[in-house]
Amino acid sequence: MAKANKSVKTAGKAAAAKSGKNTQKGKPVLRAIKGGKGAPAKSPPPKFSTKPAAKPAATKPFPLKPAPAVADDVPAIALNLEPAKLTPAMAAYFKKCQDRLGFVPNVLLAYAFDMAKLETFVAMYNDLMLGESGLSKLEREMIAMAVSSQNRCYYCLTAHGAAVRQYSGNPLLGEHLVMNYRVARLSKRQRAMLDFAVKLTASPWSVEEGDRERLRRAGFTDRNIWDISTVAGFFNMSNRVASATDMRPNTVYHGQAR
Amino acid sequence: MAKANKSVKTAGKAAAAKSGKNTQKGKPVLRAIKGGKGAPAKSPPPKFSTKPAAKPAATKPFPLKPAPAVADDVPAIALNLEPAKLTPAMAAYFKKCQDRLGFVPNVLLAYAFDMAKLETFVAMYNDLMLGESGLSKLEREMIAMAVSSQNRCYYCLTAHGAAVRQYSGNPLLGEHLVMNYRVARLSKRQRAMLDFAVKLTASPWSVEEGDRERLRRAGFTDRNIWDISTVAGFFNMSNRVASATDMRPNTVYHGQAR
Amino acid sequence: MAKANKSVKTAGKAAAAKSGKNTQKGKPVLRAIKGGKGAPAKSPPPKFSTKPAAKPAATKPFPLKPAPAVADDVPAIALNLEPAKLTPAMAAYFKKCQDRLGFVPNVLLAYAFDMAKLETFVAMYNDLMLGESGLSKLEREMIAMAVSSQNRCYYCLTAHGAAVRQYSGNPLLGEHLVMNYRVARLSKRQRAMLDFAVKLTASPWSVEEGDRERLRRAGFTDRNIWDISTVAGFFNMSNRVASATDMRPNTVYHGQAR
Amino acid sequence: MAKANKSVKTAGKAAAAKSGKNTQKGKPVLRAIKGGKGAPAKSPPPKFSTKPAAKPAATKPFPLKPAPAVADDVPAIALNLEPAKLTPAMAAYFKKCQDRLGFVPNVLLAYAFDMAKLETFVAMYNDLMLGESGLSKLEREMIAMAVSSQNRCYYCLTAHGAAVRQYSGNPLLGEHLVMNYRVARLSKRQRAMLDFAVKLTASPWSVEEGDRERLRRAGFTDRNIWDISTVAGFFNMSNRVASATDMRPNTVYHGQAR
Amino acid sequence: MAKANKSVKTAGKAAAAKSGKNTQKGKPVLRAIKGGKGAPAKSPPPKFSTKPAAKPAATKPFPLKPAPAVADDVPAIALNLEPAKLTPAMAAYFKKCQDRLGFVPNVLLAYAFDMAKLETFVAMYNDLMLGESGLSKLEREMIAMAVSSQNRCYYCLTAHGAAVRQYSGNPLLGEHLVMNYRVARLSKRQRAMLDFAVKLTASPWSVEEGDRERLRRAGFTDRNIWDISTVAGFFNMSNRVASATDMRPNTVYHGQAR
Amino acid sequence: MAKANKSVKTAGKAAAAKSGKNTQKGKPVLRAIKGGKGAPAKSPPPKFSTKPAAKPAATKPFPLKPAPAVADDVPAIALNLEPAKLTPAMAAYFKKCQDRLGFVPNVLLAYAFDMAKLETFVAMYNDLMLGESGLSKLEREMIAMAVSSQNRCYYCLTAHGAAVRQYSGNPLLGEHLVMNYRVARLSKRQRAMLDFAVKLTASPWSVEEGDRERLRRAGFTDRNIWDISTVAGFFNMSNRVASATDMRPNTVYHGQAR
Repeated sequence: MAKANKSVKTAGKAAAAKSGKNTQKGKPVLRAIKGGKGAPAKSPPPKFSTKPAAKPAATKPFPLKPAPAVADDVPAIALNLEPAKLTPAMAAYFKKCQDRLGFVPNVLLAYAFDMAKLETFVAMYNDLMLGESGLSKLEREMIAMAVSSQNRCYYCLTAHGAAVRQYSGNPLLGEHLVMNYRVARLSKRQRAMLDFAVKLTASPWSVEEGDRERLRRAGFTDRNIWDISTVAGFFNMSNRVASATDMRPNTVYHGQAR
Repeated sequence: MAKANKSVKTAGKAAAAKSGKNTQKGKPVLRAIKGGKGAPAKSPPPKFSTKPAAKPAATKPFPLKPAPAVADDVPAIALNLEPAKLTPAMAAYFKKCQDRLGFVPNVLLAYAFDMAKLETFVAMYNDLMLGESGLSKLEREMIAMAVSSQNRCYYCLTAHGAAVRQYSGNPLLGEHLVMNYRVARLSKRQRAMLDFAVKLTASPWSVEEGDRERLRRAGFTDRNIWDISTVAGFFNMSNRVASATDMRPNTVYHGQAR
Repeated sequence: MAKANKSVKTAGKAAAAKSGKNTQKGKPVLRAIKGGKGAPAKSPPPKFSTKPAAKPAATKPFPLKPAPAVADDVPAIALNLEPAKLTPAMAAYFKKCQDRLGFVPNVLLAYAFDMAKLETFVAMYNDLMLGESGLSKLEREMIAMAVSSQNRCYYCLTAHGAAVRQYSGNPLLGEHLVMNYRVARLSKRQRAMLDFAVKLTASPWSVEEGDRERLRRAGFTDRNIWDISTVAGFFNMSNRVASATDMRPNTVYHGQAR
Repeated sequence: MAKANKSVKTAGKAAAAKSGKNTQKGKPVLRAIKGGKGAPAKSPPPKFSTKPAAKPAATKPFPLKPAPAVADDVPAIALNLEPAKLTPAMAAYFKKCQDRLGFVPNVLLAYAFDMAKLETFVAMYNDLMLGESGLSKLEREMIAMAVSSQNRCYYCLTAHGAAVRQYSGNPLLGEHLVMNYRVARLSKRQRAMLDFAVKLTASPWSVEEGDRERLRRAGFTDRNIWDISTVAGFFNMSNRVASATDMRPNTVYHGQAR
Repeated sequence: MAKANKSVKTAGKAAAAKSGKNTQKGKPVLRAIKGGKGAPAKSPPPKFSTKPAAKPAATKPFPLKPAPAVADDVPAIALNLEPAKLTPAMAAYFKKCQDRLGFVPNVLLAYAFDMAKLETFVAMYNDLMLGESGLSKLEREMIAMAVSSQNRCYYCLTAHGAAVRQYSGNPLLGEHLVMNYRVARLSKRQRAMLDFAVKLTASPWSVEEGDRERLRRAGFTDRNIWDISTVAGFFNMSNRVASATDMRPNTVYHGQAR
Repeated sequence: MAKANKSVKTAGKAAAAKSGKNTQKGKPVLRAIKGGKGAPAKSPPPKFSTKPAAKPAATKPFPLKPAPAVADDVPAIALNLEPAKLTPAMAAYFKKCQDRLGFVPNVLLAYAFDMAKLETFVAMYNDLMLGESGLSKLEREMIAMAVSSQNRCYYCLTAHGAAVRQYSGNPLLGEHLVMNYRVARLSKRQRAMLDFAVKLTASPWSVEEGDRERLRRAGFTDRNIWDISTVAGFFNMSNRVASATDMRPNTVYHGQAR
């Protein structure tokens, strides 16, 4: 148990360090999949101190109070998994979410039955979606949406639809990407990016050098291609975890940044 | 840079701790995707000390010497990404791979252009495939194969085909899972598990409570269902990263445990 | 031309008579595909006099003033078709739309290059969606959505998503039906209805007596089955007309009844 | 009831007027989906007076005497729907069919349980298939066939196969379009038209500006594109109504114009 | 060349012997894919002597005179392959076809560039379609049609559609099987047979013991299952050869047994 | 019975003659689907005398002793079919297999319940895969693999995977073709060939002149196109026979030429 605690603490520090590295001003690392509670779109993200929470109380089971939800869209998942005791790092992280967003994204509650799983998920998510990249955060969210639409994933379309609306300040773009990315008015670069992500989603076996060449011709570097691929890959994972567990998005997402 | 180093070191410790927690006797955390060099199938896995490598030399660029390969199956991926300096933890990890397996799996070389990405990938992989679970390691490898066959992923079918042959001591099972999991002679439990994983792969939108109920009737707990789902999800990610980058498996896999 | 006028007038009268027959209190016949301008969901629909507009001015080209739209979501369709002179009946109808909804649905503008086409479309639409039926208007809208989601039709998902939100007073239901009807919390009856509609959409050749029997067991009469089939059929038509012409929904729909 | 009668009469006049407008010499408006009883292919269509039938007897339930059929291809549909009393206009229309074709097409009998539905169907059908268009009637029938073949619709392939054979005087063309339109010897124009219609049928979400451009390059105007799209859309509706109800074509079609 | 001649003669004898064995009264072995020239449906098949043709003239290039065809449905295939000199056995065989059917089926002309290929094709065809089997010849033709419809094969649907019409005396059955076998009024046994054949065609990897069990429950023996499988397999081959070469059926088929 | 014997003898002679014609030095006609028992890859194929076996004992039921197999991969098929008495020709043929390969390929045992079926299968197989062709034997095996992978056929992937490894001396090529032919390093010619074969397998209805033109531009003659088409067609047949009967490959294949 002491070992587990230590492991968690370590992971907590890792997350903190990463947040510090990937986001210049200590922005909250999971901001993208949660909307600001009534905050106007495009408002500057709240500051986020990455220091571990001081109070040991944070290691108590997190009092899970999701935002008031329509009765039919709970619980977070259809599996009966006992919430684990949050590690200090994760407790601090959840508290930040609650303080700044008004809720903890349900995907985090879903993973919170096991701290190792929660931490590795958070670490990968934050690196991919908020870390340094030649793709803007909006572009990464657009990939998330195009993939999730192909897979018809309710959770991800809802959470990342809100993110697209917020990052772009364009509610229509969010709708386009939910319904059919081909109707969105995209630059050639962005269209090439989403075509690649959707082909990779629908028939990964058919992706070949010609597809990579199309991305390069649209201006993407090899590193960009890696990022497009891994973001698309990540949501092919998350979509399936969400569908397999009937994951439900926090109801508050639906109304954000409309 | 000091920060980056610290981040990596932290991650290194996390991996070490996790390995200690998830695998009772310090088994090597990436064993599953690499074959034992000539070791007989089902031999006990070699011990693996998780302590950070003592020598600073380990932070030098790793001398990447893949096993002798047929000329047409290199390089590891079709993207031109400069290898990063390995963190001490990752350098130690790669050294372990080299010492015990005779090679570093190409997927690790592919991610090694960025230490944060390498570490989060390794952490998630190890937790899912080698951590505590009600699914045996063989069962998790079987899921990896069924998913990868559906997605026709060359890298994963090769690497995890070797793992299935090793874990099961049954070369035919490996072939069955590469070609068509329906021809394998499976228990009802295992068949239900793979049916779920393949349906989740092919049409995630169609997975519903009835599918979870089928798993429960086959004897799986809700926690098992989570594990099946996340392993299947993980390989839906990895398959796509591999296809998107034309990732090539180490040639040595092909001959292992035949 | 006199003939055409007469034809139109006749059609106008037919529509009026039908409206009077199918909707007890002269409800507006195209209400379903347009949102009430700020009217609270579930408010009683405004009265609608079906008498032909008195003023001859109504035969002038309709002053098409769509609701203020985001710049990228116009024009209504990607075909260059000269608007025809509205017949008095259609002019009166458009005026009603403008007065009560604040806009004329773009699908009407799209058809307005030819009065015969506009009138037959309106007549069929109104009979199917607003006429007498054992299916509630909400249920018919739900079918429209399930079909349009299968076909990924931007126009119909937007316009009928608004209608579902309004009729049901449940914004979540609208989102569920856009993304994946399987995540909606439906009664067995409604689920059977949408399963039939989606199967009929995806593989019409495979619909057989067993499928009709399933509907009957869920409580549907043969007349109900006809209505489910024709509504599903109608949107398989409309989805394709919309996709073929890049039809764009009025932007105002997006925010209605959220 | 008086209202209904009036509605019907009005509709009858509308149909008459439309027929007068769209077809220069009062050709029968539903001719295309019924074969001439032994009439040689390409014979001039019989004149058709649109004046309401004089005898009140015409408002009695129509004595439905389909042409002698092979025993296994009746009844018209698999739903038990009570035939409604034909309106005078529809009674006159059915009588014309019987007089000139020797039978009333089963699709009309199927809709004849409700006069409003019958009339709107007939109106839309006649406008699309027999009204003014830059597409010849044969071309519209070819679209009907290509769509119906994609959807494997028994009713429409049979009825419109007869029409294609009649209009073209080429029995082979009818067979080609039933089985696989790609084997037909088509002009570039017609091939582009059918490629568009079939793509629109199979994956409407994927139709984009490039597809319209291909049609324009093949010589089609935007109005032509509208007509191709709406005819294709209409048969995507009709195919599904036919499949959903197990609609059976009049047996006489099979032998027409072979 | 002598060798070749000998080979051919041998094969000719083999075919003769087989014909004698499989068909009690020396029926023509390729009758099924050619229609009787105006012979009434169900008339007893003409006798067929399997003795080698006496005249050496038979080894001359066969005077290929297909039945008068519509100009656009020739030549037999889209590949330019020089006809080979017919072996005596094949020359005799072609002569029989011409004498009794009035034409040589185009598939034979297609294969006639190479005698070994022609003979092996004829031998397999005759064994499968005309040899002893627990399946009636009509049932085997029905399988041919269901498979060919799934594969949309113009040649096979035309040639075997004629055969089904002839064997069954039911022109409608032929049409049903061209368009969608699910609309045919089939016995449970026949429906099970075609469901198996179509599943085997569309997704062979998914056929399992449960599918064979369904056939057994429908009354089929294991030998019957073999025959269903090999007939379905054979047409999956022939359909592809026909599609790959744009094989055109003899025009005369279209009108047979209507 | 005498007739049957004669038929078999005749067929035996035909096979002998064909072998003599197609393969210059009397190579064994079924070599390709069986591996040499421990023979090094690329060793010259053993001589094979095509003369009928002298001993009448050969007409006894063949003592079927498959190579020692893993327990779960027997019997050859899931149908209970009584082995027939081998004809002398087939008995001699099986003996050759046993002598030279160490086993009789299971596909032959599967067909051995009926000599006519066995002989026609062997004759077609040998002509296509071992007869004269502008395609090398390796190329024909590559087509077999690409088709069998598309159809996920366990039997054919195993048997022909071994053949590809043997003919090419490149074990990786065998693995590539099992998993996803697109990852193989192919010449333009070979890639065009496999693209055609796979398209023909997946959607035969869509193959047209443009596809043949692509082959011609890659250097293939019309005769080559015939061969590609018929080999692809043959494995579309064999894959389905194997899947329909749960055919199991001889276990020895798995280890050959790795």
